[in-house]
Amino acid sequence: MDIGFLGLGTMGAPMARNLLKAGHSLRVWNRGAAPREALAREGAHACDTPRQAAAPVLISMLAHDQAVRESVLDSGLLDALPEGAIHVNMATVSVAFARELADAHAARGVAYVAAPVLGRVDVAQAGKLNILAGGEPADIARVQPLLDVLGARTWHFGARPEQANAVKLAANFCLASAIGTMAEAGALVRGHDVAPADFLAMLTSTVFAAPAYQGYGGLIARQQYSPAGFKMTLGLKDVRLALAAGEAKHVPMPLASTLRDGLLEGIAQGDGDLDWSALAKVSARRAGQA
Amino acid sequence: MDIGFLGLGTMGAPMARNLLKAGHSLRVWNRGAAPREALAREGAHACDTPRQAAAPVLISMLAHDQAVRESVLDSGLLDALPEGAIHVNMATVSVAFARELADAHAARGVAYVAAPVLGRVDVAQAGKLNILAGGEPADIARVQPLLDVLGARTWHFGARPEQANAVKLAANFCLASAIGTMAEAGALVRGHDVAPADFLAMLTSTVFAAPAYQGYGGLIARQQYSPAGFKMTLGLKDVRLALAAGEAKHVPMPLASTLRDGLLEGIAQGDGDLDWSALAKVSARRAGQA
Amino acid sequence: MDIGFLGLGTMGAPMARNLLKAGHSLRVWNRGAAPREALAREGAHACDTPRQAAAPVLISMLAHDQAVRESVLDSGLLDALPEGAIHVNMATVSVAFARELADAHAARGVAYVAAPVLGRVDVAQAGKLNILAGGEPADIARVQPLLDVLGARTWHFGARPEQANAVKLAANFCLASAIGTMAEAGALVRGHDVAPADFLAMLTSTVFAAPAYQGYGGLIARQQYSPAGFKMTLGLKDVRLALAAGEAKHVPMPLASTLRDGLLEGIAQGDGDLDWSALAKVSARRAGQA
Amino acid sequence: MDIGFLGLGTMGAPMARNLLKAGHSLRVWNRGAAPREALAREGAHACDTPRQAAAPVLISMLAHDQAVRESVLDSGLLDALPEGAIHVNMATVSVAFARELADAHAARGVAYVAAPVLGRVDVAQAGKLNILAGGEPADIARVQPLLDVLGARTWHFGARPEQANAVKLAANFCLASAIGTMAEAGALVRGHDVAPADFLAMLTSTVFAAPAYQGYGGLIARQQYSPAGFKMTLGLKDVRLALAAGEAKHVPMPLASTLRDGLLEGIAQGDGDLDWSALAKVSARRAGQA
Repeated sequence: MDIGFLGLGTMGAPMARNLLKAGHSLRVWNRGAAPREALAREGAHACDTPRQAAAPVLISMLAHDQAVRESVLDSGLLDALPEGAIHVNMATVSVAFARELADAHAARGVAYVAAPVLGRVDVAQAGKLNILAGGEPADIARVQPLLDVLGARTWHFGARPEQANAVKLAANFCLASAIGTMAEAGALVRGHDVAPADFLAMLTSTVFAAPAYQGYGGLIARQQYSPAGFKMTLGLKDVRLALAAGEAKHVPMPLASTLRDGLLEGIAQGDGDLDWSALAKVSARRAGQA
Repeated sequence: MDIGFLGLGTMGAPMARNLLKAGHSLRVWNRGAAPREALAREGAHACDTPRQAAAPVLISMLAHDQAVRESVLDSGLLDALPEGAIHVNMATVSVAFARELADAHAARGVAYVAAPVLGRVDVAQAGKLNILAGGEPADIARVQPLLDVLGARTWHFGARPEQANAVKLAANFCLASAIGTMAEAGALVRGHDVAPADFLAMLTSTVFAAPAYQGYGGLIARQQYSPAGFKMTLGLKDVRLALAAGEAKHVPMPLASTLRDGLLEGIAQGDGDLDWSALAKVSARRAGQA
Repeated sequence: MDIGFLGLGTMGAPMARNLLKAGHSLRVWNRGAAPREALAREGAHACDTPRQAAAPVLISMLAHDQAVRESVLDSGLLDALPEGAIHVNMATVSVAFARELADAHAARGVAYVAAPVLGRVDVAQAGKLNILAGGEPADIARVQPLLDVLGARTWHFGARPEQANAVKLAANFCLASAIGTMAEAGALVRGHDVAPADFLAMLTSTVFAAPAYQGYGGLIARQQYSPAGFKMTLGLKDVRLALAAGEAKHVPMPLASTLRDGLLEGIAQGDGDLDWSALAKVSARRAGQA
Repeated sequence: MDIGFLGLGTMGAPMARNLLKAGHSLRVWNRGAAPREALAREGAHACDTPRQAAAPVLISMLAHDQAVRESVLDSGLLDALPEGAIHVNMATVSVAFARELADAHAARGVAYVAAPVLGRVDVAQAGKLNILAGGEPADIARVQPLLDVLGARTWHFGARPEQANAVKLAANFCLASAIGTMAEAGALVRGHDVAPADFLAMLTSTVFAAPAYQGYGGLIARQQYSPAGFKMTLGLKDVRLALAAGEAKHVPMPLASTLRDGLLEGIAQGDGDLDWSALAKVSARRAGQA
């Protein structure tokens, strides 16, 4: 299949690579040149502008709303897509912007599917992402073979693309809360002279034996916040987007508010580039433990 | 071994039964008569007062601080224990009272081990509890054969008994937070016309595939809050004890505070006897969804 | 002085009227026609478009960022202002937009002063507003005679206009907090069978004998939430802007977060058009009192 | 009148002195000897034990529940009071203990009035306290002449003494919230390079022109947290008691919870002996400003 692929960051690059390996033809674009040149050496066609990546199927994995706005809406790319094209946007974007995107695509007769993902880099490399899809079932069906290359499973959350974005933001809020909860609980036991690592080892091998807790619990236990898998600044952005998605539908989220304030506090201390599991530093400092 | 066993509630009864089955001799006491008579029919010796349950090993699984205070401290039981006796307190009690108990036992030369458990009734029946032990290693070792009858594994958290109670309260706070987080996230997706059950099915089979999330997530998905496995009133009590355990060591716990207020709100609506997963009702009502 | 005046709502209309009475010549514009016709009958020149209101001094008192954007930036008004013109923006806008406005004016050589106000309609009518000014001192000095018509006192908060907007948002957050605090305290005493009105009467005639507490405390005591002096939806907007102004400078505001969630909850119950003192309804409902 | 007076701390001493000056006969007791000796030099009769202070009217102004328990209940004092005696407890105690005290007095036929006060040391010296009274109207009427010596006004809040204690705790929560709110707002404006002192000067001379804001606002503006008028540790205690008083009646208090966590955080940083207006230090540190 002829695919345009935008965004070759830590997640996008291995995803594009998997599509290449599966035999698809890729026109790749990325803001920085190095990643697109790397993909070109593996057989992709490197593009100098987003518009050059026009193809019957467009996949984007960009960093945030503004990057999508510039490369998809402002670049003229949408108008350059061939008749019958479909755009699969796998980025985590705001619900409000997701709806704007859906409208912009509909106005130009381009099919639009939101397909944000759960899973970190190693999962992307293995092609085992969980894909959260929103859009017309027929549209999703058209690109299902490609989603099957990228992910272990595709979950459908409704005919309106932004529904999948709401689910993605809800899931990231759950991750933030798991981290923040281990942070507080760790400070509590440490106050009583129990090593957080001992507590977390028990917790994550019993009632909380899940990837999210084991992964982040391990980082907290080892106080290993750098290099960041997901920076506090990005965590703050996603929690803020979850709060906004709630506000749009009048859903108060006091736990999310509390997590927002904690992430903001960590960033204010200069830790914005640390992994968001550094919420444990915030809890420790509040308790006078650090 | 000759064992005195206090407290034959939903957790205590199956635990006592497992000890009986393993060939131990039990003197059982419970405030209400029916449970002790039931155990008597299975071979235990039923006692009319806590003091009559005096034995070289005393195990207690009572509901709260006050029940332990009355049956162990005020009943004269401590003084009736034979020389060299040991008391294994498996109840979830406050850290402050745990310390008071440790002191009271030390003053009478009775060994004291705190051994609260993780796991609900079915796990207790199966003898697969996770036991969180605090106390002198030699004391724990003495009762390890009994703990092995009751649980799958014993975790050691320090020589001071109350350390195990702090860990237990931290773990219960983590459970409350998992519930409260699914409640908020569920309200968020529902605001965007995604069924919370669909969201939770995805979440608990991927990054949050852990017993705590699957169990409580299922209750929330099915809105099945009765009969309660663990009532909101008990959840409030444990979160309050976690906050107090934090306060004693100057550990702020804003997530726990938020959960406390949510549980209190649920109780104020008349839902105190529902399972604490009914925090999802609180989130839904706040969002005008119920 | 020749003045263009944009925005003749509940606050803008009496302010414009006071300028007319003081002998100034006004070109007035408002989105709806009725208010500008009313002012025309009192001697103002009514304009059909914002651009027609161009004058050496422009004063705007519009409802929110978007209204200012449309009428000042998108309407071509800025370009139509005469050489040496000055714009005094008295609306409560976001700090981010205030900065954008300052830049847009600077690019066109138009002086720009932010001058949001404290005080409700009756205070505006009396010309006794407190004016929170941000901008170059020389610019503020140029319009001080006009500000003296509108307000009792002008407070200076820095050379960058957005500083005054930050102060205004901080002040509105303080009002929200005063309301939310009386709401919680009222629910507390009511839980103990003390009428909130009795409690508030004492409070607001002793340590809290200030206009903010007396005004909003009276509304709460009388449960008189309609007609709204300031709607919950507007209160939510301002608290959200305060949170955003904090986030821009890494200032966590957990009390503001809590108030945001309360206002959102009230709106979700269908009370968005009530006065924001209806936060007391939220506290009462949470406590099962309503 | 013959009065027994317990507790000669910073508040109790000037209150006792005012009663002496008004011509009453006082039997005074205080845990530490120096204050009672000082009062003795001014004409009071110093007692070595609480029981010796037995008199037809007993007034107590002690630091906390435990001090009242020891000196009134455990000391035998209640049994030593003459027939028809009345006890006016002016301390800030918990609602639960207030009820226990009321029951204990009733069981011995001693009249009991709760009369906690609003006002700091200078107000106590001037005899201008606001007295929050709970109890049978006839009982309050009996001691009204004494209350008139101590205070400017007596407010009645119900026939059950603990109602006055609930009101006192609600009022102290309002003070904590005013402080915490100025702390957050001050950090917000400081983030935008506005001096908190400038902001607070405006705020407390306009909509928030009340003693509570002016007093604590001045301390925050001058960062003058020592010597403490009311320590953070005492502030935490009172907010905790307010939360408990709410919990007893199922009243969630999320603002109070947030303030509790802030006070606890300040104490964890070693600032427990500073004035509770040092909540502003907590907000500043969270924002990376200190």
